[in-house]
Amino acid sequence: MDQIGRKRWAIAEGYIPSESVSSDRALLSHETACILNAGDREANVALTVYFADREPAGPYRVTVPPRRTLHLRFNDLKDPEPIPLDTDYSSVFESDVPIVVQHTRLDSRRAEISLLSTIAYAQG
Amino acid sequence: MDQIGRKRWAIAEGYIPSESVSSDRALLSHETACILNAGDREANVALTVYFADREPAGPYRVTVPPRRTLHLRFNDLKDPEPIPLDTDYSSVFESDVPIVVQHTRLDSRRAEISLLSTIAYAQG
Amino acid sequence: MDQIGRKRWAIAEGYIPSESVSSDRALLSHETACILNAGDREANVALTVYFADREPAGPYRVTVPPRRTLHLRFNDLKDPEPIPLDTDYSSVFESDVPIVVQHTRLDSRRAEISLLSTIAYAQG
Amino acid sequence: MDQIGRKRWAIAEGYIPSESVSSDRALLSHETACILNAGDREANVALTVYFADREPAGPYRVTVPPRRTLHLRFNDLKDPEPIPLDTDYSSVFESDVPIVVQHTRLDSRRAEISLLSTIAYAQG
Repeated sequence: MDQIGRKRWAIAEGYIPSESVSSDRALLSHETACILNAGDREANVALTVYFADREPAGPYRVTVPPRRTLHLRFNDLKDPEPIPLDTDYSSVFESDVPIVVQHTRLDSRRAEISLLSTIAYAQG
Repeated sequence: MDQIGRKRWAIAEGYIPSESVSSDRALLSHETACILNAGDREANVALTVYFADREPAGPYRVTVPPRRTLHLRFNDLKDPEPIPLDTDYSSVFESDVPIVVQHTRLDSRRAEISLLSTIAYAQG
Repeated sequence: MDQIGRKRWAIAEGYIPSESVSSDRALLSHETACILNAGDREANVALTVYFADREPAGPYRVTVPPRRTLHLRFNDLKDPEPIPLDTDYSSVFESDVPIVVQHTRLDSRRAEISLLSTIAYAQG
Repeated sequence: MDQIGRKRWAIAEGYIPSESVSSDRALLSHETACILNAGDREANVALTVYFADREPAGPYRVTVPPRRTLHLRFNDLKDPEPIPLDTDYSSVFESDVPIVVQHTRLDSRRAEISLLSTIAYAQG
């Protein structure tokens, strides 16, 4: 298949609640960047995280193999530093090949889960 | 009416929960690709599904008649293979005429349903 | 202010549940097309609604005054015909001046409400 | 990093419910415009709010420092006037440097929260 996507993406919203109704990984409050690499070359992605009152964190480096998707949880980022909880952030993705990025939050602060999702902003 | 839409679309998010509070088809946990063909020619759409750790599935082939919408449930895909539950995936749609694609999940793992939706990523 | 927006928009998703936990208008299950006309000329908008198994309905005609927003409930459309409940649909908007369209559902089939929203697809 | 984003953005949906299940700021019903300024120059943003039946309010002026995100609550706008509750509105953002804008509502009218989010419409 031909490549589909763009090389730079931004997600302006970001917030991981510290509370969760469940300790089950699937139902833990989390935010995800779903990254599709539909092309035939590995995608090397550098992720930078922006905050309200400090310099950005990163780059975080992830690799998405050819013809694979990676649903990357911001909660799982560790290197160079974890994403703080209950904190406003944004993120920018830079890839060496075209990718598609979609943003999702599962929020389980209350007894019932709530979801949000949007395509990210693409450029380049 | 003139055609509206694009020929290639991608949805980076994909996840069908195996649990549902209800066995009513309307309230069963499901993901949908809503496909609008507003033009005067039939749309022949090939759908490829990407995973985290295996080669893609598909193509799945669906047809949308002229001036019709198809709300295609990923849960209903059977040929060449069903979409596994509780599994991260992404999808790419290739049509021979312009279409518009929007992605939706109804999640009823908990007692109350939760919804997410986004326009898909368009190209071509 | 300069105009902002496009003249043609499409929303591929559409579904108004017939059930609602409340008869309060605010909490009744509904879908809305939020239409912003930020320009200095009246927007004359023709709306066509597409279905899975019949010819489209419409055009429905709405007017958005200059520098105004109209949060149009699909539930409220009556002329030429109401939108059927529990039925898959899509919609296309054609305006004579640039507008911005966003789609929202409030779903109150269950005891708690659920929301979805996305920017519509723009063209022209 | 290079700049990412656009200078004009619009959000057609807008509605802040007056009711909330909790008086905790995090769980109060609110709408947010998440604004990312990934560039190296301060972003001076003018925000105009549109209504169904009166002239627009604003401009509201906010500043986003270089390499920072601002999750701006519409509930917090005070100057030149607060945003009325239970009222349909839309918003337009004009910045002197590229920014990225995403729209979110947390709705806690009922016992469980509900979320919606979408990338805003970009132009310029």
